[in-house]
Formats: sequence, structure tokens, C-alpha cells
Amino acid sequence: MTAPTGAAAYLPILDWGRRYDRSTLVSDLVAAVIVTLMLIPQSLAYAQLAGLPAQAGLYASIAPLVLYALLGTSRVLAVGPVAVVSLMTASTVGGFAAQGTAPYAAIALTLAFLSGAMLLVMGLLRWGFLAHFLSHPVISGFITASALLIAAGQLKVLMGVKVEGAHFFELVGGLVRHASEVHVLTAALGVTMVAFLFWARRGLKPLLVRLGLPARGADLAAKAAPVVGIALSAALTWQLQWAQQGVKIVGTVPQGLPPLTLPLWDLALWKELALPALLISVVGFVESVSVGQTLAARRRQRIEPDRELVALGAGNLGAAFTGGFPVTGGFARSVVNFDAGAQTPAAGVFTAVGILAAALLLTPALYFVPQATLAATIVVAVLSLVDLSVFRHTWAYSKSDFSAAVATVLVTLGAGVEAGLIAGVGLSLAMFVYRTSRPHIAEVGLVAGTEHFRNVQRHTVQTDEAVLGLRVDESLYFANARALEDRLNEEVARRPSLRHVVLQCSAINDIDASALESLDAIDARLRDAGITLHLSEVKGPVMDRLKGTELLQHLRGQVFLTHYQAVQALAGKDALAA
Amino acid sequence: MTAPTGAAAYLPILDWGRRYDRSTLVSDLVAAVIVTLMLIPQSLAYAQLAGLPAQAGLYASIAPLVLYALLGTSRVLAVGPVAVVSLMTASTVGGFAAQGTAPYAAIALTLAFLSGAMLLVMGLLRWGFLAHFLSHPVISGFITASALLIAAGQLKVLMGVKVEGAHFFELVGGLVRHASEVHVLTAALGVTMVAFLFWARRGLKPLLVRLGLPARGADLAAKAAPVVGIALSAALTWQLQWAQQGVKIVGTVPQGLPPLTLPLWDLALWKELALPALLISVVGFVESVSVGQTLAARRRQRIEPDRELVALGAGNLGAAFTGGFPVTGGFARSVVNFDAGAQTPAAGVFTAVGILAAALLLTPALYFVPQATLAATIVVAVLSLVDLSVFRHTWAYSKSDFSAAVATVLVTLGAGVEAGLIAGVGLSLAMFVYRTSRPHIAEVGLVAGTEHFRNVQRHTVQTDEAVLGLRVDESLYFANARALEDRLNEEVARRPSLRHVVLQCSAINDIDASALESLDAIDARLRDAGITLHLSEVKGPVMDRLKGTELLQHLRGQVFLTHYQAVQALAGKDALAA
Repeated sequence: MTAPTGAAAYLPILDWGRRYDRSTLVSDLVAAVIVTLMLIPQSLAYAQLAGLPAQAGLYASIAPLVLYALLGTSRVLAVGPVAVVSLMTASTVGGFAAQGTAPYAAIALTLAFLSGAMLLVMGLLRWGFLAHFLSHPVISGFITASALLIAAGQLKVLMGVKVEGAHFFELVGGLVRHASEVHVLTAALGVTMVAFLFWARRGLKPLLVRLGLPARGADLAAKAAPVVGIALSAALTWQLQWAQQGVKIVGTVPQGLPPLTLPLWDLALWKELALPALLISVVGFVESVSVGQTLAARRRQRIEPDRELVALGAGNLGAAFTGGFPVTGGFARSVVNFDAGAQTPAAGVFTAVGILAAALLLTPALYFVPQATLAATIVVAVLSLVDLSVFRHTWAYSKSDFSAAVATVLVTLGAGVEAGLIAGVGLSLAMFVYRTSRPHIAEVGLVAGTEHFRNVQRHTVQTDEAVLGLRVDESLYFANARALEDRLNEEVARRPSLRHVVLQCSAINDIDASALESLDAIDARLRDAGITLHLSEVKGPVMDRLKGTELLQHLRGQVFLTHYQAVQALAGKDALAA
Repeated sequence: MTAPTGAAAYLPILDWGRRYDRSTLVSDLVAAVIVTLMLIPQSLAYAQLAGLPAQAGLYASIAPLVLYALLGTSRVLAVGPVAVVSLMTASTVGGFAAQGTAPYAAIALTLAFLSGAMLLVMGLLRWGFLAHFLSHPVISGFITASALLIAAGQLKVLMGVKVEGAHFFELVGGLVRHASEVHVLTAALGVTMVAFLFWARRGLKPLLVRLGLPARGADLAAKAAPVVGIALSAALTWQLQWAQQGVKIVGTVPQGLPPLTLPLWDLALWKELALPALLISVVGFVESVSVGQTLAARRRQRIEPDRELVALGAGNLGAAFTGGFPVTGGFARSVVNFDAGAQTPAAGVFTAVGILAAALLLTPALYFVPQATLAATIVVAVLSLVDLSVFRHTWAYSKSDFSAAVATVLVTLGAGVEAGLIAGVGLSLAMFVYRTSRPHIAEVGLVAGTEHFRNVQRHTVQTDEAVLGLRVDESLYFANARALEDRLNEEVARRPSLRHVVLQCSAINDIDASALESLDAIDARLRDAGITLHLSEVKGPVMDRLKGTELLQHLRGQVFLTHYQAVQALAGKDALAA
């Protein structure tokens, strides 16, 4: 596939729209029906998780889906409410208003507005690289901890218990303390639904295949199990009047088009929402891009991160103006869309039409849906996100990655999602900087039969008493410039017959102003001790900047192309001198 | 000089005390007299700058000097109040209490206590490396901006004007607005003193030499000029009754030993003082260590940063319990001590005795010292710290160092010393991380007649269509792992006849868990495209960690000792295959 050019590069619909035909239409329509069936309960559930009324979940799955379909570069990504972003929304907005109130909903859509604006600006500035600062262990730890936090939060709904608290340990402690207050009927319903959903994931498809369905059809039918379970539980609740016995239900969901809403124009509020909005934007972007990339790679397509930012930004702005809350590209819905055979973003538009129809016609049918069964769908969905393998892998490979992952998990569980994310990113950057501040410095010698120089402590190499070759395994900058000075002072003190020091610069990718001063000082000190400083294998970009500095003007030694040439020339000189 | 061992390594007095003789004693005593003469006005002036009564300056120059002499590793460093730390003290304590009140003094010594405790702990943990995170351009910018800020703050004292405000632009604006309210007599006194001090720096020594004094004596006498100027101005103020005409004087300074004081035991206050105390500790440590190292190098002695931390910590604790405020090793006083011939820390103890005598006997004589002449000594002292050359140097060499310096200056002037320091350090670390997140990746080829590989765009080299050699000029970690993936995708798309990719790892000093996953993904994607991934010149520490990872188990290609061997082997294979 060649990359589209011109206007099509910015409006992908001009590219795929031209080649749209009947068979593509059928594929897209089939996918849209299946995704719609899946999204109706999911939208209600994530609205509940975000602390918003059920209809907000439906609204957040309409305009954002259409806007992404117009602007996004993934052909199958489905944008809407997702678990982690809904949790982050609840955690942020909960600090300003009580769940279920009008101000709460207004602040939630203001958050979507700010997040959308930030994503848009980041996209226009081509700042997609910001997402790279979330390392794999941090993302992995964050998703796992968020999933545990979400599951713990939904357990109280599933059990019909009232528990105060927002952090994992508070929630779990509260559940244990209030265990005697469990509402038995609610809990029975919730636990049954959890069991059914787990069974549907594993056992339903083989059963349907045995009953004669083709494998693909059985697979898709199994994906619709949550809808069936919720419909069944709603029917039972209605017929057996469980609501009168204390089972909490979704209740009245207004019927109609998504409303036109405006975010709050309150600069003081914006200032307080800025950091959470940024974190939601980055997390949403990372989740969306990784889903998009995974699915695009399977069909050898590509997505463009900077344009994804713009599309997700537009999606969130869409959510803000139509009664929604922060959204992003979701994993489960996108995979289902892909598996169901969606070919173009038109499938997303058809899905949006499906959800719109549900908002217009289906909401009375949602009245008796028990909150506990929605909680059950959330618990089952998020538990599949828990992945502890990152701890095993990083423990074996890198203790600093391991500690970043552990810190992210513990801080997220104990102090919330924002603090957890900041702790993880901050710690991984701090450890990177710390490592680079203590560089590995190796004395090198010639590997016999080659022109290659390696660490004298690891290889059998030839060295020369008068010529010391040192390789600094790090760019030289302010935090590590002293380390080289200290090491050279030591080496000079230890070696009375030393005449030349050659710094092999093959691993020095940059020399900042502080390190340049240090090199000047090193050169001066070595000269005082009757030793000449040389450089070898200085890289092009580094050499470009060194030209014209006082260091090169004052340097008595030379800059050699290769370390081998340096050692040959200097050993030769010494032989002449001797 | 050999490093002392055993107990002497921790109590240097056991080392130099054993060799102490009459000639050393005379040298130390002479130096002490000269430093004492210089310190009396300086202590008063810096107490004024810190917003404290004059005696606090004297007290802060007694116990800290003695404690440093016992524990410090520099032989000539003089510890006491210094300009930048006094400014930082005023800026911090001013946020909690009004200058001149008892709570203000109590908070100042609490700040000294916290700073002392932090320095001590940092020393015991051997955290001296923290100081390396202040890059030269940031320190330089910070000192320059602090000096301008101090000078602007003292100008109002020197002019006898009342100006509100703590930031540079507020102060300068206020001075301009209140220019008509200048107290003429005060200003005349202040400006005369400034002129005298500037002249004394340049013109006094040559004059004294012409009058027949030996050069060294003339030099030291010129250093005593501030004392003479202050004594003269005090005598005039007394005789001509200038105080009645509105010239502000130091007034009553209590006579006696330093008091025993206790810091405030208030955890809430400690929490708020923690960050300023940390910044004061780090700035004080950097200033002290750079003075100490400069002077030690001139006599081929050494100082030990981690033990300096302990000694400065003890000095600050001493200040906290004897009515002082935060202190550190000062540049001017240490240089004078060195020039005056101090041989051992005993000179510091003698100086402390001299200041103690002043506190006991001399304070009535300080009554008539005009505040404007003290302000003049501060202005002249700090203006010598202004150094604009850092902007010229960094502009030519490194725009990112330049912008760190400029940010430090502007934020320090506009928002205060703490914000300036944090902005400078934060920005320089952020730019370092940003640079490493966009690594230079070069295609390399063989330099004819060598076994050395260089960038094809900069050198005339031999390459092979089937074998691509890439050198990544950065450690691979989470922030840049994607950059390599993207580059390889491009290269593979461009080169239909590509069979082998060899990553030359000579500049890769570390591979973190995220980058390892990326390499796994790269290997899988290349394999799908029929291309084999190889590594060459992997460093020992990196190879140690790669062993046992899935990457090496799955890798179809090899890990070659040298890039030359890799290219020879692979070109050979292809020849066989062809």
C-alpha cells in the first residue's frame, strides 16, 4: 500500500472512499452490527465506571466514532469510552463534584474538551513522540494496577455493598469490613454473570461449533454473550420484581439524540484540570496507538501517530459537545471490529448509526438492567488486562525497569492513577539519568590479529605502558563529566611511565558545554604531568561542534580517525624517542 | 601527598596536627588576623542581606568555622555566611515571617538546621554526586542572576529608599518610581563607598607598592580596605551626627558569647522548608566544593566531596545552635585565607577566635556603622560574580546549554532563586533526555585500507547492497526504541536486495526492557521480510545482560566481535549463495 498524498493525506476518506464497493459495504455492515451489539452494554458499563449516567456512555460512542472515521489513519480502530480512561475520568472529576450530579457531568465533558484540545495541539505540533516517554514496564504496570483498581471499585456494585474510598487498599479493606452487609440477591446476580462471562469466553465457542455453527460465526456469537447475559438479567429483574427487593437498576435513560453540550469556560477550573487532562490524553493516545499499530501490522497497513493525535483530539472534542466524556481507541471493540471483517472506517460510521438508533429507540429496554451485571462485564473485561509477566521479565533483565513497574503499580493502587503514572515516568527518567551519570569507562587494548580494541578486563589484548586507551561508554554531559576527570586522575597517579592518553570516542554521542570545560581541564592537567591527550573515533556530529572550540585549539595531541591508527602512531613515536 | 588512613581519614586534625610546628603557627596566625579583619564587615553585611540582625552574621562565622576546621578536607576553606546563600535564606524565610522579628530569626536557624542535617545525611550516604546535576551553564547563570538580584536589593539600602518587592524587575521598577525619594546624604555615603571599594581593588595596591610596601603586603593591605572604609564612615556618622539626619545605622549589637539556640521542632514547618533547605544545601555545597577544589589544586592537595558534605553539614548544625543562619565555604574569604598564607585549618580556628573577640568586645564600635556602607560592600562584592561570558560561549557551542543558562537567569530574576534553580536543572535534564530520545543513526561502510567503519554520508567508504550496517549513536531505551524501528522500516522498504542488517553496537551502552522488546519486534519483522538481523561490537556489560534473553535465543543472525568480521562473513556467505 502506498501512502496517500495531497488532500487524501489529511482526509483519508478521499483515499478509501474512491475505491468503496458493494463487497466492502457488506463487510463493513456486518462488522458494524456485531460491534454495535457489543458496544451497547460496554458503553453503559463504562459510563457507570466513570460515574456518569448510562446515556453518557452511548453519546460518547457516537460523535467520536464518526469524527475518528473521518480523520483517523487506522481502518479498524473503534473510538469510545474505555476502562482505564473512564477510571481516570472518575478519579479526576470526583475531586470537584459528587457522582451523579449535573456539575459532575459538566466537568467530565470539560475534561474531554481539554483533553481533545491538547491532543489536537500535540498532533499539529507533531509531538507524538511524547508517548515514547511511557516505557513498556510503566505502561504495563499502570494498566495492571488500573485494572485491579477498577475491579475493586466495581466489586462493591457487584456485591451491593456501600464502601467509601477511592484507593485500592481502602476499597479492599472496606469490602472486607462490610462483608456482612452484602446484598445477597445482587451478589448472586453479579457472581452468576461473572461466571457466565468467563465461561462464554472459553466454553461458548467450542459448544456452538459442536452444535454445527461455522467457526467464525461461533466466534462472533460468543462475543455477543454479554448482550445476551444482560438482556436475560434485565428480563428476570423485570419479571421477578427484583428492584423492589433492593437490586439496583439502571433506571430511566432519556430517549433521543445526543444533546448539544458546552464545556465550562472557567479558566481556574481549566488550570486544575490541565494535568489530569494531559495524563488522560497521553494514556489514551498510547492505548489507541498500540491497538491501531497492532491491527494495522496484521494487514500490512500503517498508521501515522501524529495524525492519530489529531483524530483522537477531534473525537474528544466531539464527545465534549455531545454530552460525552473522555474517549480513546479501545482494545476490545477494535479487535472485534477487525475480526468481524471491517474493511474501512465506514464500519465505524455504521456502528455510530447503530448506537444512535439504540439511543433513540432502545433506552426504555435498558430500564431494568441491573447495575451488578454491568459491573460484572467490567470486572471480566478488566481482569483480562492484568498481566504480571512484566515483573518476571524485568526482574530477570533489568532491576531498574522492574522497580519502575513496581513503583507504578504500588503508587497507582495506593495513591491513584495520576500519582502512579507520574511516579512511574518520573522514576524511569530519573534512573536513566542516574545511570548515564555513572558511565562505564574501560581501558582498551588491541585484539590480536585485528584492528579492534576491547576492554582489557574482558579480552586478551595487547597494551603499551606509555599509551593508555580509555573508552568512555556514555555521552559526556554535566552529570558525568567529573567521573572522567576522577578516573583519569587515578590512572595518571598509578602509571609513572604514561606518556599518551587516547580517549576512544566511539560511544560518545554528544559533549555538552560542561563536559567541554572538563575536557579542557583534563587536557591542562595531563599537560602539566607531561602527558599528551589524544582523541580517536570522534563521530561526525560531535566533531562538527568541537571544531572551533578552545579545546581543539589548545590540544597538543591529535584527533585520529581510528584508535588503531592512534596507537600505531604513538607507539611508533615512543620507539623513535627511546 | 599520600591520603591519610585510619582515624585520620575522618578527623583530618590527627593528620596535620601531628606535623604542626612554629612556622606553621606563625603563617596560620597571620592569615587569621587578615581574614578576621575582612570577615567582620562581611559578616555584618551578609546578615543584613539575609534580613537578620548584625550579630547573627558574627555568630554564623564562629562555630561553623571551628567545626569545618575539625572535619573538612580543605586546608584553607573559610566557612560562614556568603552572598548567594544569604539571599536564598532571605527569600525563603521572608515567606514565613517579617524581617527583623524573633520568628524570622528562629526560622532562619531552623533552615540552617535542616540544611545541615541534609548535608550530613547526603555525606554519610555518599551522595556528593547530586551536585553534578547542576551543569556549569546553570550554575553560572544562577550566580550571575543572584548577584544582580542582590545588587538590586541592596541599592535601595544604599540610596535610602523604601521599595517593596523581592524580584529583580519589581526592585528595579520600584527604584525608578521612587527615584525622587532618594535620601541624599545616605546615597552620597553609599556611592562614595562603592567608588572607594572599586578603586581599592585596582588602584590601592599599586599605590602602596609605589609608597614602598612589598607587593604581598600591599596586596593584603588592599584587602583590608573595606574595614578602613567602614571604620571611616562610622567615625564620620558619629562625629557629624548623620544618624539624626536620617542615615540608617546598624545600632545596638548585643555584646557577648554566641547564644545557645534551638531550631523550631515543628514538622509542618520542616515540610515547607524542606525544598528550600535542599536547594540551599546543594548550592552551598557546589560553591564550597568548587572553591575548595580550585585552591587545593594550586597546592596539589585534594578534597573529598563526600566528607566535605559532612563537614558543611556540621558547620550548618553549629550555626543552627549558636544563633546563626545557613553558611557555606565562601569564595572571597577562602581566597584571602589562602593568599595570606594559611597552612592548616588551625587558621580557621584562630579566625573564629578573632570573630569571637569582636563579638565580645567590638560590638559597641559597630553602633554607628551606616547600613549604606555595608550595602556598598555587598554590591561591590557581588558585582564581581556577574559573568556574562557563559552566554557567548554556550551560544557558540551548544544552543541547549545556552537556553538552560538563559532560562536560569530569567526565571531567577523574575520569579526568585528557588524557581530559577529548579527551572535551570529541570530544563537541562529535559533537554538531555529529549536529545537522547532522537538518536543519530548512521549507515556505515568500510574505510578503504582499514578495518574501520564510518558514516557513508561523511566518508568515502565501501558498502554492499545485500548487507546494511547501521550504527545507533545512543543507548537504546524506552524514549528512543521506536526511532530505530521506524528507521529500519524505512531502510527495508527502500532496499529490495537487502539480505542482512548488522547493528554496530559500539555506541550502545545500555539496552533497557522496552528497547529489548523493540529489538525482538525488529528481529521478527526483518525475518518476515527474509532479512537476517545481526549484532556487532556489543559491549561487555550489554552482552552480559542480553545473554539468556529471548532476543538472543530467537536471533537467526550472529553476534560478531567486530563489525569488520561481520561484513566479511556475510559478504562471503552471499557470494557462496550466489
